[in-house]
Amino acid sequence: MSNTMRVIAVSKSKQDLRTFDYPAPAITKDNQVRIRTLDVGICGTDREICTYAYGEPPEGSDYLVLGHESLGEVIEVGADVKNLKVGDLVVPSVRRPCTEAHCKPCQADRQDYCSTAQYQERGIMSLDGYMAEYYVEEEKFLNLVPAELRDVAVLTEPLTIAEKGLQQVWQVQKRLPWACTELSKRPGHGLKAVVLGAGPIGILGTMALIVQGFETYVYSRSKAPNPKAELVESLGAKYISALEVTPEQLAEQIGNIDLIYEAVGTAELAFSVLPVLGVNGVFVFTGIPPEGEKVELLGSNLMRNLVLKNQAVIGTVNADKASFENAIADLGEFKCRWPKQLEAIITGRHTPDAYKELLQGKNTGIKNVIQFAK
Amino acid sequence: MSNTMRVIAVSKSKQDLRTFDYPAPAITKDNQVRIRTLDVGICGTDREICTYAYGEPPEGSDYLVLGHESLGEVIEVGADVKNLKVGDLVVPSVRRPCTEAHCKPCQADRQDYCSTAQYQERGIMSLDGYMAEYYVEEEKFLNLVPAELRDVAVLTEPLTIAEKGLQQVWQVQKRLPWACTELSKRPGHGLKAVVLGAGPIGILGTMALIVQGFETYVYSRSKAPNPKAELVESLGAKYISALEVTPEQLAEQIGNIDLIYEAVGTAELAFSVLPVLGVNGVFVFTGIPPEGEKVELLGSNLMRNLVLKNQAVIGTVNADKASFENAIADLGEFKCRWPKQLEAIITGRHTPDAYKELLQGKNTGIKNVIQFAK
Repeated sequence: MSNTMRVIAVSKSKQDLRTFDYPAPAITKDNQVRIRTLDVGICGTDREICTYAYGEPPEGSDYLVLGHESLGEVIEVGADVKNLKVGDLVVPSVRRPCTEAHCKPCQADRQDYCSTAQYQERGIMSLDGYMAEYYVEEEKFLNLVPAELRDVAVLTEPLTIAEKGLQQVWQVQKRLPWACTELSKRPGHGLKAVVLGAGPIGILGTMALIVQGFETYVYSRSKAPNPKAELVESLGAKYISALEVTPEQLAEQIGNIDLIYEAVGTAELAFSVLPVLGVNGVFVFTGIPPEGEKVELLGSNLMRNLVLKNQAVIGTVNADKASFENAIADLGEFKCRWPKQLEAIITGRHTPDAYKELLQGKNTGIKNVIQFAK
Repeated sequence: MSNTMRVIAVSKSKQDLRTFDYPAPAITKDNQVRIRTLDVGICGTDREICTYAYGEPPEGSDYLVLGHESLGEVIEVGADVKNLKVGDLVVPSVRRPCTEAHCKPCQADRQDYCSTAQYQERGIMSLDGYMAEYYVEEEKFLNLVPAELRDVAVLTEPLTIAEKGLQQVWQVQKRLPWACTELSKRPGHGLKAVVLGAGPIGILGTMALIVQGFETYVYSRSKAPNPKAELVESLGAKYISALEVTPEQLAEQIGNIDLIYEAVGTAELAFSVLPVLGVNGVFVFTGIPPEGEKVELLGSNLMRNLVLKNQAVIGTVNADKASFENAIADLGEFKCRWPKQLEAIITGRHTPDAYKELLQGKNTGIKNVIQFAK
């Protein structure tokens, strides 16, 4: 192991994106694991950070090491590490408890519900991320990945968004005493879901919904045929273009819409579909759009719908350990059902040298990955 | 018993509100109960029906007998009636299963979640209501009321709205693994709630929230001092006028708002407060505003809040049997804690002769009641 490593880092204050040679990190506590980074996925949040609009560097630094969708290989374990060994593949979670861990959620290892807003997030908020050749992390923040998922496990983190969202949907729907529960493997059987958006979050969400038994529709801007439409249709979902079909027509075509899973990140499209949510339906928001976009709504009609149709709207961010474990299990299921489609989500594998184009250039393909090691 | 009875009925098609002498109903099935009406409360829905904007008469009739907030006395029981006897006080529920009872919710006796929209509602939708000297109903739709609650039990039905809403809040918040559950008698302990509106639904909701342990604020238009403000403050809630304090100032004053309970029925005020809902908070809509009111929202900020703060928004309508039972139990609790305030909600008791003024005149006081018998 060399004493230095290459990292990709960004500075909001200096409006700068560059690489550095950082000292390679070493284990300093017995519960830590040293990891060689294999793949790091790039997502909208990374690109937003690279417009210098979002993200915070660690205290005392101008630069934040990017990257939060990561797959790595264990290369050293501390004396107290129990369940990981050298050679294991791991996906780290992103959020860490609030600084003093004084909020109830963080104390319960549920920093995804942190109530102080003082949480930290690797690669996003006050902690360096995984666009580095090596990193060190506590065992409890690492999730073991079967070797068979080596080529797709970088998709774990984006899939956790759907896993956490669906976990909440079933918890919310416990209000319906006859609803299927998480005890069922196909709790969505007989129900209809609409996914908004056909990016990586939308496609992975579509896969998760189909596995849970939902009749699934993907509603997105681009006209078909297009590669994403073909991909989702090959999964068994129906692709519908928002340029060709209005939300009202969509609802007419589908019938009662039980679940809408927003993975499009713009308020306008999301709120245009909210009025067609069905009786006892749930709308899940996952996107974080830029601030300031105004939307004119028929507020009273929306309110009437919410009340008269017993609807629920939830927002979900970040994921807990169970959602990472469910995502890894689901990736295994996806790989059995749809090996080609799962691979097709990763439209580009690049060397770290390509970072500027990937982070600040035109957004192309579905999911781009930086390979730090093979 | 006379062979006829006086009823108060409305016709949308004839734009007419009047009284009739109807034949008094008799028991025709062994599971039925015959009831003498004592008190019937008047609410916004009744007044809306009397603008000829809402409500449907029974099939084959031009007129709908009004009234859905009712207290009555059992005067005859069918041969199969098990748990009610002559002299018992009862509050009937309102909604009945969809015509063919072919939806899953109605089959599970949860017509409050009816998914066909073909449910019927006494006094509102396709079934005559309780503004009649006598009525007949199946035992299973009647809820026994202790004699001690004779003077206030007409408030049961409006209180069920809060009971069903809170039932759902706790079911939704099961997504938070450390949250108190319905097993606790004070699941709101340590949490802060804002009630929008200080009408009967808002005041009864405030009482229910305080009993559950919430630190409770009532946010309503009228400037204090006013009788409703004095009433809610005497319960231990804090009254804040929306004319004097903006939603942003409200949030600054309160801190993290865990629950907002909308009981104001207008979209503008409701949506103006939604942006200040706190981390992991739930917003409960209960009002049914007139259609067509536009609201301009900062849609992307609302969406960011929903996602980044893990918020939930739910609408709730109608109530199940458990909510009626909980409302009756809570009325007993309220009567112990706040006997004067509970009585003060009923600001007027009137003879049936006053129906026109009460249903189509100026809306005065808090809760007006028509006394059909003493």
